[in-house]
Amino acid sequence: MEIKERAEENKICPLEIAVNSISGKWKIPIVWQINEGKKRPSEFLRGIAKVDRRVLNQQLKEMEQDGILTKESFNELPPRVEYSLTEIGKKLVEALWLLNDWGKLLIENKKV
Amino acid sequence: MEIKERAEENKICPLEIAVNSISGKWKIPIVWQINEGKKRPSEFLRGIAKVDRRVLNQQLKEMEQDGILTKESFNELPPRVEYSLTEIGKKLVEALWLLNDWGKLLIENKKV
Repeated sequence: MEIKERAEENKICPLEIAVNSISGKWKIPIVWQINEGKKRPSEFLRGIAKVDRRVLNQQLKEMEQDGILTKESFNELPPRVEYSLTEIGKKLVEALWLLNDWGKLLIENKKV
Repeated sequence: MEIKERAEENKICPLEIAVNSISGKWKIPIVWQINEGKKRPSEFLRGIAKVDRRVLNQQLKEMEQDGILTKESFNELPPRVEYSLTEIGKKLVEALWLLNDWGKLLIENKKV
């Protein structure tokens, strides 16, 4: 019985990792913005109200380490940095669209 | 410009609501367990390590209010309570499967 329960716990493991990796407060808005064509941290700052630069940079760094984003630094003056979605990041966008549709159901249900 | 930014913020709104409604620490494991055929709070307690009854009840209540779960009380001795997924809850399971698959990609990517 205990082994079966452990197996069931293991089953939610990839999902837990998925949820943990996007549960940073601004991570989903960042993914969304990049998906809409924005690339530079200054653009993310304009698009996301209330996030400060230090927090933004930390979240970008974590998402780069998780393999969701790629960072490209251009050797220019002033220095320019651009982020883009990796293949894994693009798959995340697909999963988020489904969750977005589900959110709409939730909103409609609350209105009734 | 400001209107456009607001429109973009609105676009992530259903997604934010979706994420908020499942971000309670045990909500996803609860949905998972019900999806696997468990119904009673005592079964959830056995299946989820480290959750206490008070917290479990709070999360069940919130999910019932959000329209994800239905609660059924049986007039028996001892009293029996069973939870099941609503149609919205079942749609959530579909979205979570996609996110689970994405979590697997994330894990494989980290191993490389």
